[in-house]
Amino acid sequence: MQSLDRINGFFGKLGCVFRKCIFYVLSVGPIPTHIAFIMDGNRRYARKHNLKEGSGHRAGFSALMSMLNYCYELGVKYVTIYAFSVDNFNRRPEEVKSVMDLMQEKIEELLKQESIVNSFGIRLHFIGNLKLLNETTRAAAEKAMAATAKNDNAVLLICVAYTSTDEIMHAVQESCNEKLCKIQELKSSGSGGDLIGVDDQEFAIKLSDIEKHMYMSVSPEPDILVRTSGAYRLSNFLLWQTTHSYLYSPVALWPEISFWHLVWVVLNFQRVQPTLEKRKKLV
Amino acid sequence: MQSLDRINGFFGKLGCVFRKCIFYVLSVGPIPTHIAFIMDGNRRYARKHNLKEGSGHRAGFSALMSMLNYCYELGVKYVTIYAFSVDNFNRRPEEVKSVMDLMQEKIEELLKQESIVNSFGIRLHFIGNLKLLNETTRAAAEKAMAATAKNDNAVLLICVAYTSTDEIMHAVQESCNEKLCKIQELKSSGSGGDLIGVDDQEFAIKLSDIEKHMYMSVSPEPDILVRTSGAYRLSNFLLWQTTHSYLYSPVALWPEISFWHLVWVVLNFQRVQPTLEKRKKLV
Repeated sequence: MQSLDRINGFFGKLGCVFRKCIFYVLSVGPIPTHIAFIMDGNRRYARKHNLKEGSGHRAGFSALMSMLNYCYELGVKYVTIYAFSVDNFNRRPEEVKSVMDLMQEKIEELLKQESIVNSFGIRLHFIGNLKLLNETTRAAAEKAMAATAKNDNAVLLICVAYTSTDEIMHAVQESCNEKLCKIQELKSSGSGGDLIGVDDQEFAIKLSDIEKHMYMSVSPEPDILVRTSGAYRLSNFLLWQTTHSYLYSPVALWPEISFWHLVWVVLNFQRVQPTLEKRKKLV
Repeated sequence: MQSLDRINGFFGKLGCVFRKCIFYVLSVGPIPTHIAFIMDGNRRYARKHNLKEGSGHRAGFSALMSMLNYCYELGVKYVTIYAFSVDNFNRRPEEVKSVMDLMQEKIEELLKQESIVNSFGIRLHFIGNLKLLNETTRAAAEKAMAATAKNDNAVLLICVAYTSTDEIMHAVQESCNEKLCKIQELKSSGSGGDLIGVDDQEFAIKLSDIEKHMYMSVSPEPDILVRTSGAYRLSNFLLWQTTHSYLYSPVALWPEISFWHLVWVVLNFQRVQPTLEKRKKLV
């Protein structure tokens, strides 16, 4: 048994050295600052392998841990994952509950001493309308954000209870509230008079107001968006932020995603990066 | 020469009959109501064939006419095309001018008696911030919209001076103005008093307000989004409207798009349509 462990350990180390060599070669080109993942295909994976539904999500979590490891080893600073959409709350209650329980369990695991969060010094952000989460999951998310608030090596953004439409609406409403507060302040200070200036340029909602109030304003725009299990539809995910992102849609289901998918997408990103940069500058 | 014309005419008619047979078979399944196209690759096509830049756009226009013909023959009611983005105004002035001139020329052609617009009874909508167009192109667009306002067999939406970000911002500003007007009205009628109710639910911007003020509110959401020349980035196009759309990205450059691309995408749409419908209902 001990010698089996030793052999396993040896091959593990060999794999790690090999990976570092590949990353060293990749580092000759530009490394993406921010990669976003739509982890699609967990349930299909479970069906494909005749597993229980929950096992698909567990296999997905394990694939996520490996992928995060690769990304941060490569030097990617921001990783965003689409964990649960606002629309997913319309699934069967027992499925929603099982995902919430799994989420809570995994958030707690992430905070353990030996976890990836501590080994890379990762700051956690939970993105979306957290009020929609059940109380214990929300408490776990808030605790995790507070506990990692001082980490600044890398960032993991976990979109829960998120859709882009909801994010944009939230930003619009926050911007309106901000402007209304300003009007009220002016009124109560007496300097602005009645409703003078309400329709002035100063009180119009601007692009910068909306962007400031986006949940995702804590990070730069993603360089790459990976959406597994073949893309035949646009998900309601980071629509506002991915205009200039490189889009990659491997056929693999999320639990099947591998190190080689990451190498492939980074190589392709490096090929088109000058064009993407040019387009960004044109805006 | 006359016999050559006859032979051409014969093969033209044969092609038309063949197409109708294929469409008849396709009609067994659901036919998309709305298809949107990002016509990417005109300039690359010109470079590939050593043509002048303008020739790429002209070849693109010719491909568009064929595609519109196929779509309306198949029974698609709404077609949307991305003709010119807000960001495209940052291209070289001579290129912008040349595209504007071409657009004006083609709009005028569309209004001629023998054009596709008259043969199918198409209503034209120009979508976007039309103020950004030069005066003559804007006048041509407005004239075309007025001239076809009573057509109701089919609809062609032409996005000019358009980006999704701009559309969303426009909708936000319009919604705010509407609410402010209501507040002002209440004030001037004296019934609402000073600023009472400003932060009430009635005056909050809702999703329905934003959707009502979208440029694209004149049509249902697209069933299919086709983006030519290989999709390695998301364009700032119909982001709000394509969450449930089937996405298709052929490698062909826009001028190379053919009848068979349409057949292929409709077949694939029919395959996934039940899933897309289920997702729509979940929201």
